[in-house]
Amino acid sequence: MIPIAICSLDSGNTGLSPIPHDLKGYGADQAAPENSGAEVLTNRRNALSNNSSLADVLNEDVMPEPPRPNIIIILADNMGYMDPGCYGGGAVLGAPTPRMDQMAAEGLKLTSFYSETQCTPTRAAIMTGRLPIRTGMSLASAAGSLAGMSPQETTLAEVLSDAGYRTAMFGKWHLGDVEESMPQNMGFDQWFGILYHLNTYSLKDRIGYDPKWAEGLNENYGLVQAKKGEGLEMVMPLNTSSLGIVDEQCMDRAIAYIQDQANSTEPFFIYLPLARTHFPSVPNDKFAGKSSRGPYGDGVMETDYHVGMVLDALRDIGKDNNTIVVFTSDNGPTLDQWPDAGYSPFRGGIGTVYEGGVRVPCIFRWPGEIEPGRVSNEIMSTLDLFNTFAVLGGGEIPSDRPIDGIDQSDFLLGYNDSSNREWVVWYTGTDSSPTTLPAAMRWHQFKVVRKGYDSFQGPESDYSQIPAVYNIEMDPGEEHNIAGEHDFAVEAFQKVYRGLVASMKEYPNTPSRAYPIVGGAE
Amino acid sequence: MIPIAICSLDSGNTGLSPIPHDLKGYGADQAAPENSGAEVLTNRRNALSNNSSLADVLNEDVMPEPPRPNIIIILADNMGYMDPGCYGGGAVLGAPTPRMDQMAAEGLKLTSFYSETQCTPTRAAIMTGRLPIRTGMSLASAAGSLAGMSPQETTLAEVLSDAGYRTAMFGKWHLGDVEESMPQNMGFDQWFGILYHLNTYSLKDRIGYDPKWAEGLNENYGLVQAKKGEGLEMVMPLNTSSLGIVDEQCMDRAIAYIQDQANSTEPFFIYLPLARTHFPSVPNDKFAGKSSRGPYGDGVMETDYHVGMVLDALRDIGKDNNTIVVFTSDNGPTLDQWPDAGYSPFRGGIGTVYEGGVRVPCIFRWPGEIEPGRVSNEIMSTLDLFNTFAVLGGGEIPSDRPIDGIDQSDFLLGYNDSSNREWVVWYTGTDSSPTTLPAAMRWHQFKVVRKGYDSFQGPESDYSQIPAVYNIEMDPGEEHNIAGEHDFAVEAFQKVYRGLVASMKEYPNTPSRAYPIVGGAE
Repeated sequence: MIPIAICSLDSGNTGLSPIPHDLKGYGADQAAPENSGAEVLTNRRNALSNNSSLADVLNEDVMPEPPRPNIIIILADNMGYMDPGCYGGGAVLGAPTPRMDQMAAEGLKLTSFYSETQCTPTRAAIMTGRLPIRTGMSLASAAGSLAGMSPQETTLAEVLSDAGYRTAMFGKWHLGDVEESMPQNMGFDQWFGILYHLNTYSLKDRIGYDPKWAEGLNENYGLVQAKKGEGLEMVMPLNTSSLGIVDEQCMDRAIAYIQDQANSTEPFFIYLPLARTHFPSVPNDKFAGKSSRGPYGDGVMETDYHVGMVLDALRDIGKDNNTIVVFTSDNGPTLDQWPDAGYSPFRGGIGTVYEGGVRVPCIFRWPGEIEPGRVSNEIMSTLDLFNTFAVLGGGEIPSDRPIDGIDQSDFLLGYNDSSNREWVVWYTGTDSSPTTLPAAMRWHQFKVVRKGYDSFQGPESDYSQIPAVYNIEMDPGEEHNIAGEHDFAVEAFQKVYRGLVASMKEYPNTPSRAYPIVGGAE
Repeated sequence: MIPIAICSLDSGNTGLSPIPHDLKGYGADQAAPENSGAEVLTNRRNALSNNSSLADVLNEDVMPEPPRPNIIIILADNMGYMDPGCYGGGAVLGAPTPRMDQMAAEGLKLTSFYSETQCTPTRAAIMTGRLPIRTGMSLASAAGSLAGMSPQETTLAEVLSDAGYRTAMFGKWHLGDVEESMPQNMGFDQWFGILYHLNTYSLKDRIGYDPKWAEGLNENYGLVQAKKGEGLEMVMPLNTSSLGIVDEQCMDRAIAYIQDQANSTEPFFIYLPLARTHFPSVPNDKFAGKSSRGPYGDGVMETDYHVGMVLDALRDIGKDNNTIVVFTSDNGPTLDQWPDAGYSPFRGGIGTVYEGGVRVPCIFRWPGEIEPGRVSNEIMSTLDLFNTFAVLGGGEIPSDRPIDGIDQSDFLLGYNDSSNREWVVWYTGTDSSPTTLPAAMRWHQFKVVRKGYDSFQGPESDYSQIPAVYNIEMDPGEEHNIAGEHDFAVEAFQKVYRGLVASMKEYPNTPSRAYPIVGGAE
């Protein structure tokens, strides 16, 4: 067996090195890992290889070819696993979410869906299907950092655009603010929204802040828009008091865009990474006080309303049945910001590898194709959105680089009760050496944690001597470290690690591009 | 306004004093509380007074009279809020619960349903509708304690029996093991089961235990049975290795009893307080290893199977549509016994007043009468089962004593979206003075905590100077004490307390009958 990460790779290819550096130190000319004798654990594969479209390989006698769907990704920001009603929250937490609940009733609710630990890494994972350590997008990027995702990456927008999709984005990018890394240069025909996390725009209102401290730093952008290949256009600057309208502005344009597709024969891909429910939750006038949970809950209800706007618009243009919509969150709740924070029944939140940080709500809806009311605890990752949507859209997945996502289309469509994934690993921090140790791994019902935080603001719990092991079915709160008698989980972690090291030695990682002060941006 | 606890009481009545003591110290001859000028907060009342049957007061133009249903209470032991799949657990925790999920899909799932903090108090509350401090059943009763619930209490079984119901119990009593307190003398035509919590029967197998230490203590009873008014018959002794069959034995008899009702014209009331999922979870052979959560999870799956047996039996005898079934738990998970423990997304477990201890799963199913798939976050208490089932069964609620339960039949049947309850209070410990301070109160979305434990085994967190206040919608984990700016919740607590003190002064509490060493049993 060879690790999935290097399956179907042409051995003559080199890795991606968007910021020039010498590949040879741990490059492709080293011994191929499959010759090292190391036993490696693979994530399961299905009949669809990374390079095939669903239509190519479906056995038409058994699996009817589904239509090539319109694709909409709605990504909430820092929403907790338990915030939506269908995940135990909603009215229980003072903020009902009838439209998310409707999505779950009409589609597939996943209860072991995993994001990365932070905004930027999750967004990079969705766009590329690659572990953030490979793309250098392992930390939330700061305004004016003069860095961003490498143009050598191939984004989902590019894959679908090449396959004939119209592509548009409305919302928060957070994959860099240099020109080459902006959405209009990353495969989107058009986009409208913001480049950073919301709190970037409230900086000047912090208690004790002196505006002169901003001198010499790059000014951030407000609400902006651009068309493919064109320059960025400022629509309006943003400050704390105007943050309440960001999603409303994005949704107005998103719904108009959907309406414009009514008579189109080309499929469309819409990426809707909403600004809610990231702190600071500055209420929108239309939602202020709607919940009994305060501004955060008002934001949950606004988000739910926006989910409903998408569903209603699809119905109105008659494209309900040929559109797949996914709703998820980029990471867990911002516990350090309580009460401006979501909730999870698990340990930890954003920035941590504990379940609270990475286990997020995820609902897929595709009437007629995905069974209504289905619930699954199978493991899936945000990385998989890249492969799955590329395959469903008939796009071509790059074959010249390791892709960590897995096509889950047969699982989503019900041809398979099991997902094609047995483990997820998380890397945190800015190390990009191929021997960097992952911070944690979910493997079957176990969690192996080498480096954890109980909140984003730490402190770090280091388990470098013996990784902690939790049985997250028996101990979903990750309170009881059972490494002593569960060393087999540590062995599994080591096997996965060996496969990843080999892959990263052959295809070097891009040094961190989020914070140039830490990584290798020159 | 007068406190609900003394509504509809004949002022000439005295309280119940099952163990003789002088009432006059704080008795009925004191100034009536309504004359004291104290402002008291009431739980909402509905059109149905405690002494009326539903049929008496329903406006037939608006509310058709429902049939007098068969009534089945299935009570799990120490099951956590999140254990059932429909509450976020099930397969997520390695133990699927398809039949509980079916009950929720076909009925009403409550997300703010509250038990008492322990086995015995919850069971007393269900049976009497009275706060355990009033009945002296405020602590788990021990084997051989020579105490038990007073025969002066009127049980739900007695109320329904008097109204023409056949009454039977299968399972765990835990309301005393003196003859007068046993089910056959408390309104049940027949019963089969056990008298104590499961761990009573595993005492002799504890590491380091010496059997001679049992000398001089009363021998406990094993699986027993009795018919109304007759003596107890021992069916088989129990020890650790035979604990796995307790529920199976009870269910065999329960299903046979249901089958016997096929052609009956009299309604029946079945109380099914299962032995699962109390520790120790000794697996039943048929369920050992079924879950991936260990013996506890196997017990959850066995319980779910037993829930299904009840539903199937009702269908088989054609009484699906005229039987109301409720499934709930007596308190939260036994965190101290991990991994032999349930799970809750909230703070604490059994023995605590934090949400994890008292917020329990609760599902009502009555096809044709209760709307399928309804979910409500309205507050309801196990105390209310007494009143609600008494009313639905056309029984007479005692008018000579304070009843703390509230009839919720209009809420359950959907005539009212709101429940009739705005607060729940918990008393813990053995103090029975009328001025005893409650340990906590849920009031609207707030929780006021005067005395909390993070686990049954403590230690105690005492907030006697300033009660802690939590907003359990914003802070379901009860981590952020906001008493400082939420003193209005403390004021509400004081008002409820004043009403309860007045009621208990007029109708004295029965001193603790659970542990005679502590209470007043002579």
